[in-house]
Amino acid sequence: MTNAASAPTSFPQMANAIRALSMDAVERANSGHPGMPMGMADVATVLFTRFLKFNAEQPDWPDRDRFVLSAGHGSMLIYSLGYLLGFDGMSLEELKNFRQLGSKTAGHPEYGHAPAVETTTGPLGQGLANAVGMALAEAHLNARFGDDLVDHHTYVIAGDGCLMEGVSHEAIGLAGHLKLRKLIVLWDDNEISIDGPVLLSDSTDQLARFAASGWATARVDGHDPEAVAAAIEKAKTSDRPTLIACKTVIGYGAAKKAGTSAAHGAPLGEEEIAAARKALDWPHAPFEVPEDVLGSWRAAGVAGKDAYAEWDERVSGSDHCEAFKSAMAGDYAGALADAIGVYKKSLVDEPQKAATRKASELALNVINEVVPETVGGSADLTGSNNTKTKNIDILSAENYAGRYIYYGIREHGMAAAMNGMALHGGVVPYGGTFLVFTDYCRPSIRLAALMGVRSVFVMTHDSIGLGEDGPTHQPVEHLASLRAIPNLNVYRPCDAVETAECWQMALKTIATPSVISLTRQGLEQARLTQSDDNLCARGAYVISGEGDYDVTLLASGSEVSLALKAREALASDGVKARVVSAPCFELFAMQPENYRLEVLGEKPRIGVEAAIRQGWDQFLRLKDSFIGMSGFGASAPAGDLFKHFGITAEAITAEAKRLIG
Amino acid sequence: MTNAASAPTSFPQMANAIRALSMDAVERANSGHPGMPMGMADVATVLFTRFLKFNAEQPDWPDRDRFVLSAGHGSMLIYSLGYLLGFDGMSLEELKNFRQLGSKTAGHPEYGHAPAVETTTGPLGQGLANAVGMALAEAHLNARFGDDLVDHHTYVIAGDGCLMEGVSHEAIGLAGHLKLRKLIVLWDDNEISIDGPVLLSDSTDQLARFAASGWATARVDGHDPEAVAAAIEKAKTSDRPTLIACKTVIGYGAAKKAGTSAAHGAPLGEEEIAAARKALDWPHAPFEVPEDVLGSWRAAGVAGKDAYAEWDERVSGSDHCEAFKSAMAGDYAGALADAIGVYKKSLVDEPQKAATRKASELALNVINEVVPETVGGSADLTGSNNTKTKNIDILSAENYAGRYIYYGIREHGMAAAMNGMALHGGVVPYGGTFLVFTDYCRPSIRLAALMGVRSVFVMTHDSIGLGEDGPTHQPVEHLASLRAIPNLNVYRPCDAVETAECWQMALKTIATPSVISLTRQGLEQARLTQSDDNLCARGAYVISGEGDYDVTLLASGSEVSLALKAREALASDGVKARVVSAPCFELFAMQPENYRLEVLGEKPRIGVEAAIRQGWDQFLRLKDSFIGMSGFGASAPAGDLFKHFGITAEAITAEAKRLIG
Repeated sequence: MTNAASAPTSFPQMANAIRALSMDAVERANSGHPGMPMGMADVATVLFTRFLKFNAEQPDWPDRDRFVLSAGHGSMLIYSLGYLLGFDGMSLEELKNFRQLGSKTAGHPEYGHAPAVETTTGPLGQGLANAVGMALAEAHLNARFGDDLVDHHTYVIAGDGCLMEGVSHEAIGLAGHLKLRKLIVLWDDNEISIDGPVLLSDSTDQLARFAASGWATARVDGHDPEAVAAAIEKAKTSDRPTLIACKTVIGYGAAKKAGTSAAHGAPLGEEEIAAARKALDWPHAPFEVPEDVLGSWRAAGVAGKDAYAEWDERVSGSDHCEAFKSAMAGDYAGALADAIGVYKKSLVDEPQKAATRKASELALNVINEVVPETVGGSADLTGSNNTKTKNIDILSAENYAGRYIYYGIREHGMAAAMNGMALHGGVVPYGGTFLVFTDYCRPSIRLAALMGVRSVFVMTHDSIGLGEDGPTHQPVEHLASLRAIPNLNVYRPCDAVETAECWQMALKTIATPSVISLTRQGLEQARLTQSDDNLCARGAYVISGEGDYDVTLLASGSEVSLALKAREALASDGVKARVVSAPCFELFAMQPENYRLEVLGEKPRIGVEAAIRQGWDQFLRLKDSFIGMSGFGASAPAGDLFKHFGITAEAITAEAKRLIG
Repeated sequence: MTNAASAPTSFPQMANAIRALSMDAVERANSGHPGMPMGMADVATVLFTRFLKFNAEQPDWPDRDRFVLSAGHGSMLIYSLGYLLGFDGMSLEELKNFRQLGSKTAGHPEYGHAPAVETTTGPLGQGLANAVGMALAEAHLNARFGDDLVDHHTYVIAGDGCLMEGVSHEAIGLAGHLKLRKLIVLWDDNEISIDGPVLLSDSTDQLARFAASGWATARVDGHDPEAVAAAIEKAKTSDRPTLIACKTVIGYGAAKKAGTSAAHGAPLGEEEIAAARKALDWPHAPFEVPEDVLGSWRAAGVAGKDAYAEWDERVSGSDHCEAFKSAMAGDYAGALADAIGVYKKSLVDEPQKAATRKASELALNVINEVVPETVGGSADLTGSNNTKTKNIDILSAENYAGRYIYYGIREHGMAAAMNGMALHGGVVPYGGTFLVFTDYCRPSIRLAALMGVRSVFVMTHDSIGLGEDGPTHQPVEHLASLRAIPNLNVYRPCDAVETAECWQMALKTIATPSVISLTRQGLEQARLTQSDDNLCARGAYVISGEGDYDVTLLASGSEVSLALKAREALASDGVKARVVSAPCFELFAMQPENYRLEVLGEKPRIGVEAAIRQGWDQFLRLKDSFIGMSGFGASAPAGDLFKHFGITAEAITAEAKRLIG
């Protein structure tokens, strides 16, 4: 309760400014969602003028309260606020260009695209789950750096859709279990969904449901500012996260459409808008905000100025100053280069025969030592994903300073929370499950890529090599389907050296999330000579067979060893094979053309991956071959499966001989 | 309460037979999950000997109770039961070959692979959500055909993982709302997950949570058969679905590992097994079941024989007999050929300029008339997905006879329920959302493909053509990532005629699920001449430009119109372009090679799709071109976006000219 900008008298008109701008912008765009901003204008006005700790002049203030509009379709709420509060770049012109090419006011709020947008929302439930990660990051950094430097809340506006989505269950279960008391969710309880009344499809008692997950709950009239304020006050003193159900009227102010699904996702139309102007006592032209109202909003925008200055001073005077700034900067390129370099040398000196999931643990031993900001975890597969190193403790409600999270069987909630942590800053999240279960968290992986955040998804058991668990657990299409996502680096290292290099890249690419695909089964170390360069950084490279050659064997991950074995077998028959390891297609695509052509070579090529062919065709010409999977796997010991599906050194050898005739 | 086979005295040993077989099979396989079958053996014995309506000699009895092992890792429970109850094909040999290549006893239960497996489980939460669909199908068919023909329960064994997964929230919300009173979930409340005690990651009050979603709940000692039986008795009289929390000890019987995560997912080891044999008073050799115990089980296996015979007689004597049998057969090829033929002719007579989502509604008007078994729905996008036709009513707790479901904002729960409905039989489920949200239900789409069931996923707004909603809502990688899933037909029709043909194929391919990808934006009708054949059945075909040609333009969906426009423009410049419409890559891949080569042609090719290139390379040679997307979309009116991203007739025309030099 820091901001004193709002005189109670101007409150209704301040809220109406949001309503008017929202309905006007949607009308002008002839597309968009006026209902939510109009319904939640009062709640948002209370939050932004009386509670939210921020400073529009310092939008990146690390200790600002986070505000997440989980119901992202109501984007005009956040854009209106951005303009009213005076965030740099959110001009009236931008509001007028809502949903137009090149504007900042995209249909749904996009992180990095418009000011005051803490995360990209629209796919429902994601914002709520991101917010859990933000609150988690806050709790962790608070434990590490103390109240003086880190002490802020995370507020969420969520709709019925957010609460119906499955990811919300995972998110609230995690938040309740971890007692994230600074997380406050304002639910736009308007009883309306797109198809009509929520009662058409749902009759959940949301308050009871949240309470069952360990949340405090409250119910208020969302159009009564004092009631909303009192509920937020109380939530701030809770020892648990809080859900505040704000009973609202969707499209509040519209004449006939208010309270109906007609107000949700389409322009109101001239007639309704004219009536709304009357009902709201808002006689101003479209996009016009009277000076006194704008003035009150602008004052609220900088009400946190002093608090910011005081915080800034505290940071400068803190013993933690350097560590805090380094954590927020999150640049580990130098430290990692040294540490990984030493580690790689040790591997050359003493080669490791290990599954790459184990190699990942070895790399993490090094990384977690030199990067104090990593916060790892697993969706209940810690021992299988090898994500917990001995040098980090468990993060729990009793120990927020810990760096390892038992996420539970919540792949989706984990991935979304990781994104929230990365967005918050000050922590570097990584989390594991089986590669096949990327399907369970794909919406969050996609958003990580769209936002460009450094979430590192550690995905083990990456092929039929997982063996007996069978086709439900064996990824065959997942590498292809992940490589399909723009701005996502999919790594599939072939041994301990490559695993270390891929981890190094994953932490270096600050604006690109990574999937690291790792084997269950043990692998020989393929790289036996020291390279100071990170060879994986080029995406693909000749790992064996420089000079003259007859055939190029292209492989990734566990199949590199098969290709190397095939190379030996071919050599004994006088055939010269070159083996290319391709741990990251995306990085390879960024190399200069001449490098790419040189690596692929002019001679016949065979692609080898224990997965489907899709995605490999870019490297293969008409007469080239692919050895991999063409359908689902089966349940059997891994060795039997590789033989059964014909993914063996023998098969590669035979195909190479056939190709070169 | 029909089966009287179990004399109370033999109960412990009947349950111990499950325990012994499970631990022995896991030990022999040196892999698997003994903990769950041993913990839930008592509950399962109560269920199968005292409640479950089935007849091992008629495993496909349509009115059997459904049993779903949602905690699929405990597969030895169902395999043990299959053998003990005498299901055909589940021999002792199969148990001994647990998790071996070619056995029926796969690591996780696979539908169609082993008897008594009603759905493929393992990916957690799916079975529970499938069961909701089964119970829904039962309620619907019960309303349609009456108690005499359809009146059965759906039982689920679910674990902590199932209840933590997000999909469980969507599933129980839907079931509670629809008051699916014949759905009974037995929760294996063993307080253990893989990482350790459940309390490491979760502290949800599950009973309160289910109650909040409108379920009846009970808590029992899962090792007290009478308590379990009483709870099931009571559940059967409930007007709501019921959750029964069965407090159990994981790995019950094992000496040191019982009650710990060590019993969950690994062989117990010789020592523990020997101790368990003692503790359980089971002095028999591995895989040996004493005659009296086996006899009691076998009797239970056929205890439903009379009930089956009576049911069979009721069916024969019923007025509904023919309709019921036809519904269960689910073969609509003939009826659809006629109806779609007539409809296609009407389109040729009166071409429709329509978005393909609208064309889908038109096709559904025809289909829902001649296929009385379709049950449609949408995840709260009814008006956008055009999934509700006027000739079907709403299915609700008040009207199970309805054929349209408001699934709410539950894409994942919807898809999983659809699979359950398809598995149940007697209904043909289709359901809609935006194509981008296939990510939200991908685990269920994959399982539909793995199981080979006829779920039809209606996915609209299938490209940047959705316009202003922006990149969060614009699929760019989704066609590729769906085409990557084996045994899934991905259709992308270009106009009303193709949409009808694709729907016809989707309903015809009984063992393959379909995604029908549809536009938001209006399209000209491309097919203007009558074809009695279903041209889409070939996957790709020359839609315009027979005879001599200089260049082949390959396109799908909305981009076919662009290719056709380019063809006209090229013609005026004297260049002959041939346009290939490729509505289904998967069906095209099944055509004979000479047909495929003929369609692709020898001349330069340009692939056009408002999506990424991945997947298209199979059709494109080194010198060919692709016009599409290379990254995420943007928020703007659709027309502006197609221009901005260079996916236009002009761009195709220019590229064609460049290619043919």
